[in-house]
Amino acid sequence: MDNNGGAVVTSKIALLQVNPIVGDIGGNASLISELANQASQAGASLAVTTELAISGYPPRDLLLQADFIDTCHTTANNLESAIPILVGTPVPPLDDRSLPGNGVVRAGDSVREVTRKQLLPTYDVFDEARYFEADERPGIARTIAGLDIGVTICEDAWQHCGATPNDYDSDPIAQIVEWGRQGVVLDATVNLSASPYHANKSGIRVAVARCAAASLNHPFLLANQVGGNDDLLFDGRSVIAWPNGTAVVAPAWKEGILIADLSSPEGCVWIGDGEITILGSDEDVEHEEDDLLDAIIIGLSDYCRKSGISKIVLGLSGGIDSALAACVASAAVGPANVTGISMPSRHSSQHSIDDARATADALGIEFSLQPITELHTAADSALAELLENGDPVAGENLQARLRGLIVMAHANANGAMAIATGNKSELGQGYCTLYGDMAGGYAPLGDLYKMEVYALAREFNKRVATDAVNESTLTKPPSAELAPDQKDEDSLPPYPILDEILRLHIEGGLDATEITQKGHDSETVREVLTRLSRNEHKRWQMPPAPRVSMRAFGQGWRQPLAARHDWRQ
Amino acid sequence: MDNNGGAVVTSKIALLQVNPIVGDIGGNASLISELANQASQAGASLAVTTELAISGYPPRDLLLQADFIDTCHTTANNLESAIPILVGTPVPPLDDRSLPGNGVVRAGDSVREVTRKQLLPTYDVFDEARYFEADERPGIARTIAGLDIGVTICEDAWQHCGATPNDYDSDPIAQIVEWGRQGVVLDATVNLSASPYHANKSGIRVAVARCAAASLNHPFLLANQVGGNDDLLFDGRSVIAWPNGTAVVAPAWKEGILIADLSSPEGCVWIGDGEITILGSDEDVEHEEDDLLDAIIIGLSDYCRKSGISKIVLGLSGGIDSALAACVASAAVGPANVTGISMPSRHSSQHSIDDARATADALGIEFSLQPITELHTAADSALAELLENGDPVAGENLQARLRGLIVMAHANANGAMAIATGNKSELGQGYCTLYGDMAGGYAPLGDLYKMEVYALAREFNKRVATDAVNESTLTKPPSAELAPDQKDEDSLPPYPILDEILRLHIEGGLDATEITQKGHDSETVREVLTRLSRNEHKRWQMPPAPRVSMRAFGQGWRQPLAARHDWRQ
Repeated sequence: MDNNGGAVVTSKIALLQVNPIVGDIGGNASLISELANQASQAGASLAVTTELAISGYPPRDLLLQADFIDTCHTTANNLESAIPILVGTPVPPLDDRSLPGNGVVRAGDSVREVTRKQLLPTYDVFDEARYFEADERPGIARTIAGLDIGVTICEDAWQHCGATPNDYDSDPIAQIVEWGRQGVVLDATVNLSASPYHANKSGIRVAVARCAAASLNHPFLLANQVGGNDDLLFDGRSVIAWPNGTAVVAPAWKEGILIADLSSPEGCVWIGDGEITILGSDEDVEHEEDDLLDAIIIGLSDYCRKSGISKIVLGLSGGIDSALAACVASAAVGPANVTGISMPSRHSSQHSIDDARATADALGIEFSLQPITELHTAADSALAELLENGDPVAGENLQARLRGLIVMAHANANGAMAIATGNKSELGQGYCTLYGDMAGGYAPLGDLYKMEVYALAREFNKRVATDAVNESTLTKPPSAELAPDQKDEDSLPPYPILDEILRLHIEGGLDATEITQKGHDSETVREVLTRLSRNEHKRWQMPPAPRVSMRAFGQGWRQPLAARHDWRQ
Repeated sequence: MDNNGGAVVTSKIALLQVNPIVGDIGGNASLISELANQASQAGASLAVTTELAISGYPPRDLLLQADFIDTCHTTANNLESAIPILVGTPVPPLDDRSLPGNGVVRAGDSVREVTRKQLLPTYDVFDEARYFEADERPGIARTIAGLDIGVTICEDAWQHCGATPNDYDSDPIAQIVEWGRQGVVLDATVNLSASPYHANKSGIRVAVARCAAASLNHPFLLANQVGGNDDLLFDGRSVIAWPNGTAVVAPAWKEGILIADLSSPEGCVWIGDGEITILGSDEDVEHEEDDLLDAIIIGLSDYCRKSGISKIVLGLSGGIDSALAACVASAAVGPANVTGISMPSRHSSQHSIDDARATADALGIEFSLQPITELHTAADSALAELLENGDPVAGENLQARLRGLIVMAHANANGAMAIATGNKSELGQGYCTLYGDMAGGYAPLGDLYKMEVYALAREFNKRVATDAVNESTLTKPPSAELAPDQKDEDSLPPYPILDEILRLHIEGGLDATEITQKGHDSETVREVLTRLSRNEHKRWQMPPAPRVSMRAFGQGWRQPLAARHDWRQ
């Protein structure tokens, strides 16, 4: 079946690790064409994009609009390129009672559809059954640029090595293996992916690629999207795996081209910043502890760039969360475009102002001191009766909301985006104020547990700017400073304990009994889980936060709201 | 196959039209048992609940917790009842690599599973492929209370008459018809539903039931959930349809029991408030124009009751939106539990205070006058430089946010819930202020177009409280009053035009060209659609709003956020 003789092994395939903008069909098309032409100049004879590269992933409900699908499809078919490209694009429904497909077309060559995705992930942050019809036919591109290759799309490859949360009815890798048994000799199988980041996931992705290559008995090439889109992050790290387990991994968080030499890992080339990693068959991906900081920065910087936002403003309380948020903002849009506002109240300590100023000075961002004392007095007087006779939480929230008001006034006056500085631990406990510290267009730390915030602050100091988060901020007891001498630990368990309970429940799926069996105090566990379920109304209105964990609040988190029953009790 | 002889036709089936609370497994179980016992006393020999009645619909991500599934399943199996009940409940996965089922078990009889749902809606507000494994086996309860009946679950019945947006591979009604051909004689087929409300949908539900009954050649009985859960509303209106097209429809918005006499529409009985409607074979459901008002009130009242909220507070601007929101709140939780706050600023007209007071007086709710003038002056002075040199929108939003702050202080001090008063037209255009008028735990009017707000205000005056919305409020030009002499029409098209453009796009799926072809000005259409796509960040953070349209902002609306490209341009 292979009629290309010796030419086959010298053909090089370029994996385009692109950072598309969702909905920017024209811009994404230009980006793909440009990279494909670069790949051609570097000797590649075929280019492969990531999944839905023309629309960007995830296009969400844009996919419900027929003209969006058509525009994507036509644009993909007509892409200009010096070499053929396998382009990921939505493709129209096969009939008027079906959904569109998540497909691959050949551009710059004979224009025709190659395949549609078979396995449609519909869990966690994925909603593909909402948008796409599952195909049942395996994909193959016969004789393209002198190669015969199998073509799969993201999830299609994950069933084969048991890496999906539940089983699908079919296994597209096994289908291609079966072709091989029937005499269809392929040179390689490619996989167009938009596989989102979460901490330490890249090892799984390499394992999936190795598993596929071993079964297929030919190289398996996975092109993965890079960059942030809304609350989803993609780390790139495109992979080439050989049947013997050797693998080449492209850099994380960088756009570029991975040119695959099918016959030699050493012959593979990365065009772009950073460099490839070659893994021997018994080598694992290194544990990427410090990856989180890159993830958070990319999330915010891409959100800003893709939304046309150039300036960021945030409240700087002198605490660890806002200090790290300022670090991330200054790395994301440049220190000259960030304003930190210190807004002390009558309950604030002097160290709160000093530490906030120290962070601003170390980063070189604009620092504004805007005491809320007078505004607070005016509000106290206007609301005197309420505040005297009502729940004291009203007075505490009032301060947080006056600060939110000031930050938003800065944002609106200057065309900047406010960012919310809350972390996952406090969001999970409702220990935050709606329209106060939760105000903002983005919550860069919203999927980081509190202890991760500390770790990233130290990491930022180490890598980027020494003392951006000073020792005082790193070591003083966390306090919201909304009441005299208030400390977080008056209301919440110590953060190392709180974080572990939340993580066991949210990411580990353990219930109260199981968490208690891990050695936690049963009353503490009960209180933490009850607060989690009772504060869903706050998360319903939280800003988007970049997802770095297995389970983030946001689009992949769909808890019922009204009925805040703790059914475990 | 029918070995029950003449006894069959005298057996009565009770459809339990329940209003469950999501997550309240014990409470829902008690409710079902109680209604089943009432049904037994009224002569029914079998009871049928709605879909997932034990968990309430939609349980959302509670379904990802294995112990939640188990607790529901065990509770459903062990329900106490004088008669057998077919109970809708989540059922455990068939193996450890599968998802749970959306199932039906027999309780109070031989305990065993009857069926699992085959067609899993995954569009609009539905995410069932996220949670459930689709079954491929038709459901039947053989000889239960002397009857042999087919058992289907909601969507299972909708494919048959083409009422789903896209086709499924199988048709559970046709499967039961096929049994009939093969000699399996059934007395009836039941359908356990949680079919959400949208305006004028009940006609479709009756058509589905008639279509199924005609094909099955026996009565088709659909038990539908009633009440609000989060942003979803269920109108009840359970249906019994006979093969000749005769149908009996239960009341809307009421909990109760519809006892079906299979041999006679006139023998059917409703236990509860309201009464049944008998439709002859050529009679359609009447157009329910005034249904919307009930829907909005039920949404808010159930949200409050199920969340343990007894008091509501809102800003009363003297405009039409807040006036109707006050009406809805007073109907939902009682006027004694509602506080309306008039918060005039320097830009407010005297009629704004007068009209707000008139509404409060007519409804008998508490009225509080809380001018923001002093607070506004204090904020102006604190933010003088920003407000003088920055975008004027900062000053406009400041007022809205000071009001949000005051309303939230009332809410927090008194344990009340603030409601946001915005409508779908302004939310769709971003003509609203995050953390200002958008602040609140619920947005009762968030899925009503502006002209629907006017219509419902007149309807409320007519049905409930004359002059609750006075003539001045109904007729003055809408204004946000955030700048001198500001009118909504300075920034937006006239509302009748805006509403129609939005409706054609959002619900009709028409693009700019198609809307222009309907006779709208192309520049206006372009501006409206651009504002819609550019203001997604506000909807991402809006409070839940009861869904009354074909397509509401909220859980069923998943637009990309960061990339606010208007790809139509």
